[in-house]
Amino acid sequence: MATIKVHGSPYSTATMRVTATLCEKQLEFELLYINVRNGDHKKEPFLSHNPFGQVPAFEDGDLKLFESRAITQYINHEYADKGTKLTISDPKKMAIMWMWSEVESLRFDQAASKLVWELGIKPLFGAPLDPKIVEENEAKLDSILSVYEKRLSESKYLGGECFTLVDLHHLPCLHYLMKSQIKKLFESRPYVSAWVADITARPAWAKVIAMIPN
Amino acid sequence: MATIKVHGSPYSTATMRVTATLCEKQLEFELLYINVRNGDHKKEPFLSHNPFGQVPAFEDGDLKLFESRAITQYINHEYADKGTKLTISDPKKMAIMWMWSEVESLRFDQAASKLVWELGIKPLFGAPLDPKIVEENEAKLDSILSVYEKRLSESKYLGGECFTLVDLHHLPCLHYLMKSQIKKLFESRPYVSAWVADITARPAWAKVIAMIPN
Repeated sequence: MATIKVHGSPYSTATMRVTATLCEKQLEFELLYINVRNGDHKKEPFLSHNPFGQVPAFEDGDLKLFESRAITQYINHEYADKGTKLTISDPKKMAIMWMWSEVESLRFDQAASKLVWELGIKPLFGAPLDPKIVEENEAKLDSILSVYEKRLSESKYLGGECFTLVDLHHLPCLHYLMKSQIKKLFESRPYVSAWVADITARPAWAKVIAMIPN
Repeated sequence: MATIKVHGSPYSTATMRVTATLCEKQLEFELLYINVRNGDHKKEPFLSHNPFGQVPAFEDGDLKLFESRAITQYINHEYADKGTKLTISDPKKMAIMWMWSEVESLRFDQAASKLVWELGIKPLFGAPLDPKIVEENEAKLDSILSVYEKRLSESKYLGGECFTLVDLHHLPCLHYLMKSQIKKLFESRPYVSAWVADITARPAWAKVIAMIPN
């Protein structure tokens, strides 16, 4: 029986960040389905796992965590000798990786996750999109991707010369955005486009996609 | 001459996060003033330090960084043997510290920084506040502080049993909020209130406050 448990939803970008890390690390785990549409993440017993009521929550033996990027950092640190190494060891290069990790969390994801909600999730429920939110966040993402294009012309991956958690953390939003009108923002930039093609082709990512029900 | 340079503003919460870490670590540094009111952070030469045009930017010899929490993590890691130790070594306790670090960045700061802008910064310029933004973010912060109250009833500090970067990252917003109507949200909660009193009384923090012009 797997000692690692992820309480989440296969549709949730934050859950996918955690399962992608577990797949890269070739670790066994159990995905316990939380029905977000029914609001199960805002009720007990889920609230005892995460008082902020957002998926995923994570268990590894007696350790309980929430906040997806803290979970991926823990997995990568605790299981350093398994699967893909998802960080850089050199202290100065690691600092640059941390910097881009913050860019993903505080800039890219702030715009991208709103676009995912409007263009990727709302259609699943038949809910109408809010054109003002789409327009605002498309403009923000466009500006962020211009910085990414320059960075990726100088560095193969966003965090440095190898694939790290920084790139991995982008994958769930990319999954939804590359199926939407937003795709053009990525495809119009050669370095960004090559980076998206590279990181979305990883075998570990295919396993995460396979968890999404048809 | 100090090799560590911080390009920022003594009024900026993100700049203060970095200078507070440098003061805790008892490191010498030079604060190079960026006039945010004149928009100098949106022009060259600052944009060559941070393409996103936000203070602070940081230099340590040939290493250049932006994103305040990546900078504090670098300082703490690189100068581990100086001043206050601002992390926890035990891997599982460290994971819990990372989790609360994400809570500060993605929950507390998202609400608190909007309140700081409305109630702490706008009055300095004589700009009128937006009551809708204040109301919305006061409600969000109230809900977050209820989770903090429970956490701090079980743990002396937010990240664990000792003062860490997690607590330190809250200090700049607390500086502004404790001088505003928002103070009541902190003072009405005994554990949160004791935590605020404890962390704001640190000698390193007094040095950061002393950098703000009267």
